Amino acid sequence: MQTVRIALGERAYDVHVGANLLARPALITGVLPQPRVAVVSNETVAPLYLDRVCAGLRAAKIDVVPVVLPDGEAYKNWETLQRVFDALLANRCDRQTALVALGGGVVGDITGFAAATYQRGVPFIQIPTTLLAQVDSSVGGKTGINHPLGKNMIGAFHQPLVVIADTGTLGTLPDRELRAGIAEVIKHGAIRDAAFFAWLEANMSALLAREPAALAHAIARSVEIKAEVVAVDERETGPRALLNFGHTFGHAIETGVGYGEWLHGEAIAAGMVMAADLSCRLGQLSATDRDRLRALVNRAGLPVALPPGLGPERLRDLMGVDKKVKAGRMRLILLESLGAATIVADPPEGALQATLMGAAEG
Amino acid sequence: MQTVRIALGERAYDVHVGANLLARPALITGVLPQPRVAVVSNETVAPLYLDRVCAGLRAAKIDVVPVVLPDGEAYKNWETLQRVFDALLANRCDRQTALVALGGGVVGDITGFAAATYQRGVPFIQIPTTLLAQVDSSVGGKTGINHPLGKNMIGAFHQPLVVIADTGTLGTLPDRELRAGIAEVIKHGAIRDAAFFAWLEANMSALLAREPAALAHAIARSVEIKAEVVAVDERETGPRALLNFGHTFGHAIETGVGYGEWLHGEAIAAGMVMAADLSCRLGQLSATDRDRLRALVNRAGLPVALPPGLGPERLRDLMGVDKKVKAGRMRLILLESLGAATIVADPPEGALQATLMGAAEG
Repeated sequence: MQTVRIALGERAYDVHVGANLLARPALITGVLPQPRVAVVSNETVAPLYLDRVCAGLRAAKIDVVPVVLPDGEAYKNWETLQRVFDALLANRCDRQTALVALGGGVVGDITGFAAATYQRGVPFIQIPTTLLAQVDSSVGGKTGINHPLGKNMIGAFHQPLVVIADTGTLGTLPDRELRAGIAEVIKHGAIRDAAFFAWLEANMSALLAREPAALAHAIARSVEIKAEVVAVDERETGPRALLNFGHTFGHAIETGVGYGEWLHGEAIAAGMVMAADLSCRLGQLSATDRDRLRALVNRAGLPVALPPGLGPERLRDLMGVDKKVKAGRMRLILLESLGAATIVADPPEGALQATLMGAAEG
Repeated sequence: MQTVRIALGERAYDVHVGANLLARPALITGVLPQPRVAVVSNETVAPLYLDRVCAGLRAAKIDVVPVVLPDGEAYKNWETLQRVFDALLANRCDRQTALVALGGGVVGDITGFAAATYQRGVPFIQIPTTLLAQVDSSVGGKTGINHPLGKNMIGAFHQPLVVIADTGTLGTLPDRELRAGIAEVIKHGAIRDAAFFAWLEANMSALLAREPAALAHAIARSVEIKAEVVAVDERETGPRALLNFGHTFGHAIETGVGYGEWLHGEAIAAGMVMAADLSCRLGQLSATDRDRLRALVNRAGLPVALPPGLGPERLRDLMGVDKKVKAGRMRLILLESLGAATIVADPPEGALQATLMGAAEG
């Protein structure tokens, strides 16, 4: 087991990465303020792991309230959140009852937002079971739900007490979701660590084959990179925005095709390729590096162009309502090289249009 | 104008109390991060003050998005909150757009929760227009909405940048709402300041007659008392709970009669009388002090007993789901004397039942 410490002062916490961690309830019980938790999962993950997690906790004398939600980004909304609140209130959960998210990014985001807002805030624990959640969404405290007009528009910062990333849960992950998680792994290399990017180029086959050692390294290094960035900017007023590389394009794609059609990681993959293309058009990234990113995304089996039916004009419009718009200015994360990202406000419209047109043609 | 500073470190802010403050937009513009605000009000307050506030801001070159909600505690729910999000997104408000609450406690709580959660948090300003909001709910950062199973069950702590309490707005307040606000003023005296309690006994007629000097003193002293308590315990882990004197009984009453039937202050008034009665039954408060509190509540024209149709058994049951239940234990705020409150966990059931029965008989 590797442990990465997220250095956030009085809100600091550990991310444990390793095999068979679900069998170690002490990782959870050691941080609980009271011997009671609500474990929130979804209809896909619950049959695989919920009983195991609940049984381990109950054996450790923890009272467990299980809550099972429908699966999918399409359910990351108020109605699903309300189901969590209903269960907590029906079971008279109080301000010391910890909420445990057992599942992927959607379960983590909804459960985290429920924990941030139930009775104005209760303790929260993450057990991410997808690669995407293990390398990205379970770390850093972002929680929330979608609004019909935009993704993650309603939410809160709420840090967990601990994150438990059991690599064994990736064995049941569909290929498509594994690839979507790899998109965020690639992102971490692209924005901050050229050596890790090169390692990914050399080990993509091993990752796609789910070799345990390769997965564990990719997860732990991704969490370290994210932790470094989050530690200096918890509430995303500055450098944390670098983690949004590919996300302004990606969120617009997700909204444009309708939540749930493309996986988050797929949209971010195409978004990163577009951001690199724009970086190149603005003369700040070499064509070689642009092509390396596109090739790695492609080798991971991820999209490098816009989905059919989503035109450049519509995408441009959707980019205008992204959260990362600041004082009316669009702020994009672009690359200066593989391993070095920068924030650019209001990129030249002509270059942006050219990137969008190019992405529409694939 | 009197200014009370709420000492919360990097979240510290001023509460301005005085006449004709709505005519001073500089109190708002001085704290804005960008020249744009959304002003949220309701159908009752908007016709009285919304144009004046918006005109002042626009004259100061501030872009203003007005949002008007239905009026009343019955609308303190997700659907109303959603209307705020809809307006913010339709107008492409971003993370620097401040939300201004212009109205009573419901507008403040909904707008504050919208500010806490829109794009994971935007700046917030309070312009309370009821006595209740000026002396209590606008100060301290509690925000939220109701759930069918409990009041304020969903919310967040989100401090405003500034609070502007214009005593002139109390001139249009219905008598019933004025009295409801006085309930919280009485509370502040009862839990922390015997001299202020005595001042209220001597000046209740002046308050009910809305004498400006009396109102200004009552507001400023209430805010000072609340500020002292909040400053040492922003997130309500300890002494802040003293501000909940009367509230466990009161919230149960509000839930029992249905939101909107009794005003919050009315329920808290009856709740304080019940809490004092229980304090007396437990031998920790003199009968004289109990009677003084009941008499003052009565002189303010506030209820001192349970509403018809709400029985003691139902009330007892509702008290069990209150937020202030901690690890399964009920924690009540009781009095040791006028001016001194204390937290009591799990009061003897017999005494509690006697208090509930007595309150049902009026």
